[in-house]
Amino acid sequence: MRFAKAHGTGNDFVVLPDPDGELDLASATVIALCDRRRGIGADGVLRVVRSAKDADSAGMAGAAEWFMDYRNSDGSIAEMCGNGVRTFARYLVESDLVAGATTFPVATRAGIVQVEVGPSMITVEMPLPTVSGSGSTSVGDVAYEGTTVTVGNPNLIITLPDNAALEAIDLSRQPELSATAFPKSANVEFIVYGTPTDGADARVAMRVHERGAGETLSCGSGACAVAAAVLHAAGKPAGLVIVDVPGGRLSIKLDGETCRLSGPAVIVATGETTLI
Amino acid sequence: MRFAKAHGTGNDFVVLPDPDGELDLASATVIALCDRRRGIGADGVLRVVRSAKDADSAGMAGAAEWFMDYRNSDGSIAEMCGNGVRTFARYLVESDLVAGATTFPVATRAGIVQVEVGPSMITVEMPLPTVSGSGSTSVGDVAYEGTTVTVGNPNLIITLPDNAALEAIDLSRQPELSATAFPKSANVEFIVYGTPTDGADARVAMRVHERGAGETLSCGSGACAVAAAVLHAAGKPAGLVIVDVPGGRLSIKLDGETCRLSGPAVIVATGETTLI
Repeated sequence: MRFAKAHGTGNDFVVLPDPDGELDLASATVIALCDRRRGIGADGVLRVVRSAKDADSAGMAGAAEWFMDYRNSDGSIAEMCGNGVRTFARYLVESDLVAGATTFPVATRAGIVQVEVGPSMITVEMPLPTVSGSGSTSVGDVAYEGTTVTVGNPNLIITLPDNAALEAIDLSRQPELSATAFPKSANVEFIVYGTPTDGADARVAMRVHERGAGETLSCGSGACAVAAAVLHAAGKPAGLVIVDVPGGRLSIKLDGETCRLSGPAVIVATGETTLI
Repeated sequence: MRFAKAHGTGNDFVVLPDPDGELDLASATVIALCDRRRGIGADGVLRVVRSAKDADSAGMAGAAEWFMDYRNSDGSIAEMCGNGVRTFARYLVESDLVAGATTFPVATRAGIVQVEVGPSMITVEMPLPTVSGSGSTSVGDVAYEGTTVTVGNPNLIITLPDNAALEAIDLSRQPELSATAFPKSANVEFIVYGTPTDGADARVAMRVHERGAGETLSCGSGACAVAAAVLHAAGKPAGLVIVDVPGGRLSIKLDGETCRLSGPAVIVATGETTLI
């Protein structure tokens, strides 16, 4: 079976080209592929299938030729992943599956997503973040107050004074969240303000603890939540925010109606695996 | 650049075929290849080069055609790795680099090593373990007494009463070792006796904390140390010991003069990478 190994800002995937939907991808196979020592190793699998050839996407076949069948490394099905869509789009372009197009729709379990592929940056339209109020958490003995933002998933954003504080925070465990305030838990983003560059309205450094996954090198929806919180705090309805995550740089453009997430995605290897 | 991803009982490697020694493998490249999210991901790199074509192995060219240039994931050079040699030998056979031979020598920085490749098991001759005495360690608040064994590297072997005790032990941190008793630190193996099978003299389950690396799925020299300690405790000068590690099953045959380590090694993917 052919595969590619690819990542978007350090969020990595095994990409499986299955244009005609001939692959019955069992969760045990996904787990074996994603095993970082006995398999290829990844955060998830992106199966590349024509929308018309999969039951989950057939209804979107008129709107998008390709369906991103995204699976988590534990074999479960996930609806959407901002870094995953960018990586998926990079693969479509590099494999000549979109006939030279650089702007095209991708079918996902969360619906049709528009992508725009540049030489290094790929932009994907994300759900519009909604700033919903304030909340608190604690890490070790220290309590923090922050802003709550919904991007489909719940987020809590905490501003820290400087990079030393950001580096020092221990995210090896889930920051404590009250079950009353966060019944579905939340992704917790810690940020520090930096000097805006490249015409941005704001620039922040971010570390994130994703519910269920622990600290990760990058979280697309978390970066969008941060951008919304930062613009909200500045009293701006729209703007461009640069978010530096441990895995690289993301930029988010909000105009009140859309949220556009941009960042790199690269294919580091292609080949054949005996695991399928 | 062509590569293979392979593992021996969960100890994984990026294999790079470089028969004519044309690749100048910088440590930054090794680090990039072994990065588990932004690279291919592995515990180390095995460069496959003709002994005559590398300065480190030219002196062994008359004794072994192929040299295992082994690098740790941090880019440093290592002398030997039992799981690495098995994986290297599997690659030579599957890539038709040993003209159908199943028993052949491999040049390593620790000298010539004899290997024997079977359909699933690969046997490699390891340094003879020496039982040297007793020692102690503590994990959390609990102190343990054990047997010290040298296999080139220092080992401390602790026997636990049952599998529940083996599962419960916290190896997320280095077990405490006195600097006087263990000036170069040590690999610490925790074992539980099971019922011997397959004609073995003993069978144990083992978990290991490797100095500098943390808990690993498998450690070839650690399993050899365990086999020597187990036979020594039984008053036997020679015998066959099965060691079940988290990554699979190893078996060790000691006859007083040689130590033969057997276990599987598999190639899970081959392809091309843009990281070199």
